[in-house]
Amino acid sequence: MTLTDTRVDDSYPTRITGKPEHLPRTHPTVWGNEADGPLDAATLANHDTRGYTVVDQLLSPGEIQAYWQELVRMSSQDHRDDERVITESRTGEVRSIFDVHETSELIAELVRDPRVLDRARQILGSEVYIHQSRVNYMPGFKGTGFYWHSDFETWHAEDGMPAPRAVSCSIALTDNYPFNGGLMVMPGSQRTFVQCAGETPEGNYKSSLKEQRVGVPHEDDITKLAAECGIDQFTGQAGSALWFDSNVMHGSSNNITPYPRSNIFIVFNSVENALREPFAAIERRPTFIAGRDSSPLAR
Amino acid sequence: MTLTDTRVDDSYPTRITGKPEHLPRTHPTVWGNEADGPLDAATLANHDTRGYTVVDQLLSPGEIQAYWQELVRMSSQDHRDDERVITESRTGEVRSIFDVHETSELIAELVRDPRVLDRARQILGSEVYIHQSRVNYMPGFKGTGFYWHSDFETWHAEDGMPAPRAVSCSIALTDNYPFNGGLMVMPGSQRTFVQCAGETPEGNYKSSLKEQRVGVPHEDDITKLAAECGIDQFTGQAGSALWFDSNVMHGSSNNITPYPRSNIFIVFNSVENALREPFAAIERRPTFIAGRDSSPLAR
Repeated sequence: MTLTDTRVDDSYPTRITGKPEHLPRTHPTVWGNEADGPLDAATLANHDTRGYTVVDQLLSPGEIQAYWQELVRMSSQDHRDDERVITESRTGEVRSIFDVHETSELIAELVRDPRVLDRARQILGSEVYIHQSRVNYMPGFKGTGFYWHSDFETWHAEDGMPAPRAVSCSIALTDNYPFNGGLMVMPGSQRTFVQCAGETPEGNYKSSLKEQRVGVPHEDDITKLAAECGIDQFTGQAGSALWFDSNVMHGSSNNITPYPRSNIFIVFNSVENALREPFAAIERRPTFIAGRDSSPLAR
Repeated sequence: MTLTDTRVDDSYPTRITGKPEHLPRTHPTVWGNEADGPLDAATLANHDTRGYTVVDQLLSPGEIQAYWQELVRMSSQDHRDDERVITESRTGEVRSIFDVHETSELIAELVRDPRVLDRARQILGSEVYIHQSRVNYMPGFKGTGFYWHSDFETWHAEDGMPAPRAVSCSIALTDNYPFNGGLMVMPGSQRTFVQCAGETPEGNYKSSLKEQRVGVPHEDDITKLAAECGIDQFTGQAGSALWFDSNVMHGSSNNITPYPRSNIFIVFNSVENALREPFAAIERRPTFIAGRDSSPLAR
C-alpha cells in the first residue's frame, strides 16, 4: 500500500508536542495600498509596523446609541440552547453572542458599511468575507478578561485558515478606560508566529470560548515577545474602532469597575484565503465561529 | 440585673444586618498643616479633597535596587508555618509578607526615614506608629487583584481603630503601568463611609488576606460612589510613592502581563487613635496585621 501525502504545505505548524518556537511570518500584514481605500499611506505603513490601527469616532453618537440598544435587545432574548450565546462560567451572564451579522439586520448593514468594508478590503488587498462576527459584553464588576493569544494561531489550527490574511475590527460601544479591561496589544508581534504546545482536544471550542486552555503561548514566549515589542493598550471613547492583525499577540485583564466594556467584533478574511481543513484539530469548528461561505461581501 | 452599656461611641457602624448606607465621615482627612512638614499647602489641600497624594522619586534608583533585593531575599526564605507570609490560593506563590518593619532592618530604617515619617506625621497631625507593614508581590501573569474596599472599614470593624486617622504609604518597587494591576482609587471617596453588610466570621482574616468576602461593599454602593467620584489609577515609575487615606475606596485588577508589580506598604496610625476592641468582630486580629504598640515612632 502506498500512502499519498495530501496535506497542504503548512508554514505555521502549531499545537506541537516539542518545545514551541518563534517562527517568522512569511506573509505580509498589509496587502493593499493607499489607492485602494480610505486609509492613507502613513496609516498603512504604521499598521504594517505595529499590527493595529485606531480609528476614532468611526460611529456617530446616534449610531452608538442604536447599536447599544441592539445589544441590549439581543442579550435579553431567550437564548437557552443557543450555541451561539456564550455565558460567564461563574455567573451565567451573557459574555458574547456569535454570528450577529446573520441574526441582526443592523450589524449586517454595519459589516457592509464603506467605513468598515472598504478598510478591510484595503488592508487585505482583495475582496473579503466574514470569518466571524460577535458582540462582546464585558459587564462591570465581574467581567473576566482573556489571556494572551494570537487569533490566527487558533483559526489556523482549528479552522484551517491557511495564512494570516485576515483582520479584525473591534468597535467600542462603551468608553474604554485603562482600567476596565481594555485590549492590550504587543505592537509588531504580528511578525512572529508563536507556536503553542499541546494537542487540540475534541470539542475544544465549547470551553475555549470562555477560557482558552490549548492554543495558549508559554509564559517564557510571552515574556520574550513583550521584551521585544512592549505592550500598548487600547483606550478610547465609545464609537472608536480598533483594527488589528489576525496574528498580533493580545489579551485583556478582568474588569472590577462598575463600567461595562462592550463592543462589536468583526473578522474579515480575504476571499483568497478561504478555509481548508483544520491544520491541527480533528474536526472543523461550527460555522457560527468560523464561516465557510467565502463569497465576497457586497454592499 | 442592670446591664451597663460599656461600648464606646461608634461613628462608623458596619457589618450590619440591614441595608448598608453611605455615612458622612465626621473626622478630617488632613490633620496637620504646611508648617508641620515637607508637604506644601497646595498638596495638603489636594490630599484633603482627593484622599491621596503621589510623590515621584521618593526612592533613588540605588535604593530601589536595595529594597528589591531585600524583597527577593525575604520571599526566598523558608516561610512554612509562618502566618505572616500570605500565598496565592491557586499557585502557592508568595503574595504578601506582613510585619516587615519588625523583620527587615532595611524596612525598619525606611519607616523612620524623614521622607516617609515626616509626611505621615504631617498628614495625621501628631506622632504616629505603625499599624501594619507589608511587602506585596504581584507576580506577572497570575497576579490576582483586590476588589473594591475601604481599609478603614476593616480596621474599624476587626481591629478597633476608632477613627480614620491613619494613612497608608505604598512605595512602588516596580514600574506601574495602567495594565499591570495598578491601584485604582475613587478620589474624594474618603469623605463617605460605606457600610458593609454581614457579620464578621471567626478567624476571618485568614481568608480575607487572600480574597475578602466580608467587608465588601455592595455593587450598588460602588456604582453610586464611582458616579460621584470617578476613578483614578496610580501609575508611575519604580520609586514613586502613593499616600492614601485609610477610608478611600480602592481596588486593583489582575495582572496578566509579564511585568510584576511589587511594593512596600506601610500604614501609619496616629498615636491619638490607638486601637480599642474590634467594633464588629468577636476577636482581635493578630498583631502582625494590626499593631497594638502605639508608642511614637522615633528616628
